[in-house]
Amino acid sequence: MKDVKSKATEAEESSLELANVSEEIRNEALQRAAAAIEKNRARILEANEEDVAEAKKLLEKGEYSQALVDRLKLSKDKIDSISRMIRSVSERDDPLNRTIFARKLDENLKLYKVSVPIGVIGSIFESRPDVLPQISSLCLKSGNAVILKGGSEAEKSNRVLYRVFKEATERAGIPEGWTQLIEARREVRELLELHDKVDLLVPRGSKSFIKYIQDNSRIPVLGHAEGLCHIYVDKEANLERALQISYDGKVQYPAVCNAAETLLVHHEIAEDLLPKLAEKYREAGVEIRGCNRTREILGQINEATEEDWRTEYLDLIISIKIVGSIRRAIRHINKYGSKHTDAIVSERGSRLIEFLNGVDSSSVMANASTRFSDGYRYGLGAEVGISTGKTHARGPVGLEGLTTSKYYLVGDGHIVEDYVGPEARPFKHVELSETWRQERDSLEE
Amino acid sequence: MKDVKSKATEAEESSLELANVSEEIRNEALQRAAAAIEKNRARILEANEEDVAEAKKLLEKGEYSQALVDRLKLSKDKIDSISRMIRSVSERDDPLNRTIFARKLDENLKLYKVSVPIGVIGSIFESRPDVLPQISSLCLKSGNAVILKGGSEAEKSNRVLYRVFKEATERAGIPEGWTQLIEARREVRELLELHDKVDLLVPRGSKSFIKYIQDNSRIPVLGHAEGLCHIYVDKEANLERALQISYDGKVQYPAVCNAAETLLVHHEIAEDLLPKLAEKYREAGVEIRGCNRTREILGQINEATEEDWRTEYLDLIISIKIVGSIRRAIRHINKYGSKHTDAIVSERGSRLIEFLNGVDSSSVMANASTRFSDGYRYGLGAEVGISTGKTHARGPVGLEGLTTSKYYLVGDGHIVEDYVGPEARPFKHVELSETWRQERDSLEE
Repeated sequence: MKDVKSKATEAEESSLELANVSEEIRNEALQRAAAAIEKNRARILEANEEDVAEAKKLLEKGEYSQALVDRLKLSKDKIDSISRMIRSVSERDDPLNRTIFARKLDENLKLYKVSVPIGVIGSIFESRPDVLPQISSLCLKSGNAVILKGGSEAEKSNRVLYRVFKEATERAGIPEGWTQLIEARREVRELLELHDKVDLLVPRGSKSFIKYIQDNSRIPVLGHAEGLCHIYVDKEANLERALQISYDGKVQYPAVCNAAETLLVHHEIAEDLLPKLAEKYREAGVEIRGCNRTREILGQINEATEEDWRTEYLDLIISIKIVGSIRRAIRHINKYGSKHTDAIVSERGSRLIEFLNGVDSSSVMANASTRFSDGYRYGLGAEVGISTGKTHARGPVGLEGLTTSKYYLVGDGHIVEDYVGPEARPFKHVELSETWRQERDSLEE
Repeated sequence: MKDVKSKATEAEESSLELANVSEEIRNEALQRAAAAIEKNRARILEANEEDVAEAKKLLEKGEYSQALVDRLKLSKDKIDSISRMIRSVSERDDPLNRTIFARKLDENLKLYKVSVPIGVIGSIFESRPDVLPQISSLCLKSGNAVILKGGSEAEKSNRVLYRVFKEATERAGIPEGWTQLIEARREVRELLELHDKVDLLVPRGSKSFIKYIQDNSRIPVLGHAEGLCHIYVDKEANLERALQISYDGKVQYPAVCNAAETLLVHHEIAEDLLPKLAEKYREAGVEIRGCNRTREILGQINEATEEDWRTEYLDLIISIKIVGSIRRAIRHINKYGSKHTDAIVSERGSRLIEFLNGVDSSSVMANASTRFSDGYRYGLGAEVGISTGKTHARGPVGLEGLTTSKYYLVGDGHIVEDYVGPEARPFKHVELSETWRQERDSLEE
């Protein structure tokens, strides 16, 4: 058995080669992986059945939830949708070798800033076995090596999916060792320490799981620990829209990170809005917890405490607070929110702008539901995750978030000595329309 | 005396307002800061003389170097160049509110990805007092609050520069508390722990200083610990160019991070190149340390050990290794280099591409000196630093590296419920030519 450090070293070495594998070969490898998954459907289902049987035993003992067993279970249809997902990643535009800018520094001295892979991605995720092929596809498409650690409950499924994916892609010309699997929990701790070899961590899972990763590694982490999203209904809101968006944000799918947890309502509109909204919420089984003023309007509801403003329910519960001004709403969100997604409903443009500018979150919506905050809906294609961090990538992250940049400077013998001192040649610094791909092709000839 | 946490909290609160201060006010504030520095020249010089007098005492005791005293000393000219620098930052294009992309998700549902400030920048730097106004200007221009910690040897100069800058900018309408100064060493340790309040650290100083910061904080660090740069002379190099670039990379300014430390020479060109190059190097007083084959060609030179390949001399010393192939050169660089800047000299385009692709550094030069790797030369304007990290910004970093992005979604009551299920409306996902600034202005009307 190789240890984590050897696996990471293999990944690192492989990543240097993988960075230069052509778009054609990367795409072809993904197509072959999709076909291999279909071909090995029976084998994958068999391994998955073993995982599910094991999980059911633990469910009976009360150690697992039914939801976990459901998420774990693969079916013929699910496997087909995995293959479709892999093919759709293959068909997206190449995220590599994009020209970020091109500049002529002087005659025959051309600077290109170009997108390149990051290197080695560490992906740690819980339960669902379809995450493994998804992350593998995104990493391969963006030229990154990957170290995968799935949940122990999906161990057998992940092992087969990993093998099938690895063999199909390496046979298509992807450098050996580009994908690595680790299985033991102690290996995760070792992985978190390898900041010299692993460039970025992309964890998926619960809030406590992500926090654990963030607190125990110096490697940059892409993701979010929680989505404590707000909807603010302004005094100049259209009432019908406010009802629709407040309902959609909470009820449409309450278990996800971009669902709304707190509603902030301008005091001038509260008496019109809240009774109608409370009725809609009650029909959907939503528990309302409110500030004192909300309770005066709505009568018998629970009090929202300080703790409620800080809670991501992920459930059919909403806390409601009446605020005296848009500024107070913005302040509440910046204080209690998780910098994920927040929305305003208002018919006044200048108030929309005040809110969009003032709320310090990765996505801010004007007259639209918080639930739109998602890589697929944003048109980014497959989603790596949603980042609430301030550096690198922010908000829903697509393939671009798995790339970094590199400067190429192409001269014909240029030295700095000519550009310093009293006789210094001046720089031209003119933007070029030429792309790096064109420059590269003309050099290759 | 406020403690570090209170200062960081003030900076954080101020940063939320500063993010929305108009371009005009930010630029005007910088112009006023430049004028205030000129107006307070005598006061600044007086404080600086005290610092210099103190440093000279320590120089006599042998605790400081002459170089440190020189870097510390301000003059009328130096102060004027500080003012010029501040004005030139003011005159640059606004790095904020740039439209990274704009996309129509559906009718009247428009998504904008826009550049915004990061938030609170922690800047820790050694000695030179001109760093304080430079970092302050870059942060203000990019809408960030800043916490400054200068070297103790420049304490009095920094204190006056800080006061003058703060008063001039706050009088021009920049939110109070946007700039904070900390002075004690123990405050740095506290700062490094404030990962909830400080979004990015931009340290400047020695390798050990940067390493200390990186090892002791969870806050992302922008910068580089060392620049171990290589020049590879290929078998198909033009000899004259190879001589020029090898000389410029080492001799033009050896004390800086983008100077070359190791020369890799293809064995087929070594006998032609090395004697001529050694002569040039000897005239400039460069000590050569070589591999065995280099020593066979050049005779009496010191042996380069494993330690030499890992050493950033920052001095008139170069290590030379003869390699059997371009692949071996690339492997050497990826193994021993610091991912800063490396160069190839070759007349064969396909070999240039192989090297540019294969070397995993933030800047790679084809037939140009490593010394070009610099924000000013790249046309980025003032430089925040050179980053050798793989995430966020990489290579020479200008104002753009002090920004992040934010998604704005503008709808007219859109809810996700309409876009899911069997009757789901499809997304349009059409790129828009409209910019965020245009959308914002039309909403503001």
